[in-house]
Amino acid sequence: MSKRATAAKPTSTTDMPVGNAVIGQSGGPTAVINESLVGVVEGLRATLVKKGLVKKILGMRHGVNGLVKDQVVDLTKTPLSKLNAIAATPSAGLGSSRDKPDKEYCAAILNACSKHNIRYFFYIGGNDSSDTCRIVSELAAEAGYALRCVHVPKTVDNDLMGNDHTPGYASAARFVATAFMADNLDNASLPGIKLNIVMGRHAGFLTAASALARVNKDDGPHLIYLPEVPFDTQRFLADVTSVYHKLGRCQIAVSEGIQNADGKAISSTLSSTGDVDPHGNVQLSGTGALGDALAELVKKNVKTSSGKAARVRADTLGYLQRCWPDRSPVDAKEARQAGKHAAIVASKGAAGVSVTITRAKGKTYKPEFATQPLSAVAAKTRHMPADYINATNDVSKKFIDYAAPLVGKLPAMARI
Amino acid sequence: MSKRATAAKPTSTTDMPVGNAVIGQSGGPTAVINESLVGVVEGLRATLVKKGLVKKILGMRHGVNGLVKDQVVDLTKTPLSKLNAIAATPSAGLGSSRDKPDKEYCAAILNACSKHNIRYFFYIGGNDSSDTCRIVSELAAEAGYALRCVHVPKTVDNDLMGNDHTPGYASAARFVATAFMADNLDNASLPGIKLNIVMGRHAGFLTAASALARVNKDDGPHLIYLPEVPFDTQRFLADVTSVYHKLGRCQIAVSEGIQNADGKAISSTLSSTGDVDPHGNVQLSGTGALGDALAELVKKNVKTSSGKAARVRADTLGYLQRCWPDRSPVDAKEARQAGKHAAIVASKGAAGVSVTITRAKGKTYKPEFATQPLSAVAAKTRHMPADYINATNDVSKKFIDYAAPLVGKLPAMARI
Repeated sequence: MSKRATAAKPTSTTDMPVGNAVIGQSGGPTAVINESLVGVVEGLRATLVKKGLVKKILGMRHGVNGLVKDQVVDLTKTPLSKLNAIAATPSAGLGSSRDKPDKEYCAAILNACSKHNIRYFFYIGGNDSSDTCRIVSELAAEAGYALRCVHVPKTVDNDLMGNDHTPGYASAARFVATAFMADNLDNASLPGIKLNIVMGRHAGFLTAASALARVNKDDGPHLIYLPEVPFDTQRFLADVTSVYHKLGRCQIAVSEGIQNADGKAISSTLSSTGDVDPHGNVQLSGTGALGDALAELVKKNVKTSSGKAARVRADTLGYLQRCWPDRSPVDAKEARQAGKHAAIVASKGAAGVSVTITRAKGKTYKPEFATQPLSAVAAKTRHMPADYINATNDVSKKFIDYAAPLVGKLPAMARI
Repeated sequence: MSKRATAAKPTSTTDMPVGNAVIGQSGGPTAVINESLVGVVEGLRATLVKKGLVKKILGMRHGVNGLVKDQVVDLTKTPLSKLNAIAATPSAGLGSSRDKPDKEYCAAILNACSKHNIRYFFYIGGNDSSDTCRIVSELAAEAGYALRCVHVPKTVDNDLMGNDHTPGYASAARFVATAFMADNLDNASLPGIKLNIVMGRHAGFLTAASALARVNKDDGPHLIYLPEVPFDTQRFLADVTSVYHKLGRCQIAVSEGIQNADGKAISSTLSSTGDVDPHGNVQLSGTGALGDALAELVKKNVKTSSGKAARVRADTLGYLQRCWPDRSPVDAKEARQAGKHAAIVASKGAAGVSVTITRAKGKTYKPEFATQPLSAVAAKTRHMPADYINATNDVSKKFIDYAAPLVGKLPAMARI
């Protein structure tokens, strides 16, 4: 910490620091994370900039990684038309980062804040990113550096505590549901057993969204495997055999994060591949290994009712789940609002908080924006509620009612 | 052959047989193959049905497989509104088949035609399917059974002889281009080396379409590998290293059908998996094996410029390429017209032919519909012309000019 940093004083009238704001994007990108970025900018312009408490709005290149390397962009005067075009573009426009700051790294972050006289710190990301935001916030307080940190939720996994759902999820869920819808017809055209591996390290929300693809009674997915339900290989093979012999085909949704009763990832018990990130997460995406291993298992053990080899295929839906440009309209709108809300609460004095989205009671879907302490969300994982899960291989109607308004109207598909 | 079949007589005035028509869909489905199905129905209603030469319009369930099992549906009176909804739906509405009929199978097909008094036989499919159509046509002639066979082209691989392009290709190419566009931004957000495996057994047209994703100078795909250019592992690793050290990231398009200088599939030299279909084609899709094997190769051999391990990921775009519902408008229109054209030429006496799409000369894109003999297209493969390929790892501007009007306007994506 430089001397200059600790010398900064709150404004006399409001106890609010005067300086600049910085916004960062962190973790896996989504189709709407730029909406949140633009939401923060819009929110700041309407509040703290207007009040004269924020002079410049800066963007970190690749999250805190860019901040400590002095890679920042000035968004203070970027025209709204340009911002709107960025907001509509998938993936992190500022660049993202998976860095997990230790104490030394945090000192560098505070130094960078000091250097740019940053007093408002907005970080858009998932649970690891909210933890980064918490660490930065706490160390700034320890150092006596006035820094107002606000976290804006984002994750396709939908696994942040204290939220009904998080920006990014609904668009990814829309991609997954559309993919299963189209792939179900492909599978009906050329019948066989089809496995589709879906993102979601610990939470099954995204895999569960495959169930939204069902229109007719015999539509897939016929079986859904979530990380929340221990995966039993024998039970799985029995399930697949049963559906395959009944329908002559079987479309299966499998979360990349499925684990056995001991909590060990099936991806690691069936195959060995992948890296480990700085947060200790083993690589699950960006490889077809789990799908291929399950397909081999099915090929060896499931035959047609006349004993012939079954046609078995596996697709891993991959990174398109988080960057496909056909976004959920609800998601795009809420991601923008979540960013705006972060700026608004900061302008009212909040700090060390994370924006939340909950659902208003009532028949019509309506989101409500509030905040929770960073400690309530940081590095924690929310799982699918038990009543969203139906037996070992399906989701409940309650989950469908939950997810349908988020995902929006899906393409119409007609059968002969 | 039953006696009844050979006893059928042409009409006195036109030498055209009177009876029923049947339509089948065969091979890998596409996003627009139902447009062609509906196009044939519409064309028949406007011509042969109107003239009284065709009484019923039947659909084969799962191609010739359903025909010989007497699984047919009657489309004669299906309302246009219903047909239009089916046309807009991806994948083969009637069901598809990969059966390769031998002599005995063909006899069963002719018996089925005889039983239903089928005199007009429309088969929508790729090169294997056009070969089925040819075999049926020739055996009917040998048997003295008046059967007018017309093939309607369809293939996402775009590898049919005598065509500028084939229905199904442009929609798949649109998916591939959109996927690379979005994934390029994802890769720019969290830099690393990203491999995307694209469909196309022998022809690189679909992989080449990834180049349409480029907007800015440093946009991916930075390297493109086609089946038409012998794949050299050392050259590939040198290419990747060069791009990665220059840009700090590298997005790569790889055809599933890449082969070495001896014509051996890289998928089989690097990994061993997959089935063989009745046409002798080894399974390339529905597995992530090629992408994972190439990713391992890159992980072992390509380091950051400071010698650290690179972040390497592989996605296999999979079956979504052929069934994603966001279709190319040109493709949807042409697929319908190709089906109509088949019915129109049949009504004018053509038989044993395949519909073709060529491109009218001139600055503005305009398709022209004609026919060629089945023998010109059956079981043959068209490759990328040499002047569409640029060096060992890219496509030419000539290819871009070829593909851009087919694929249509892609989503706008803005960068900060």
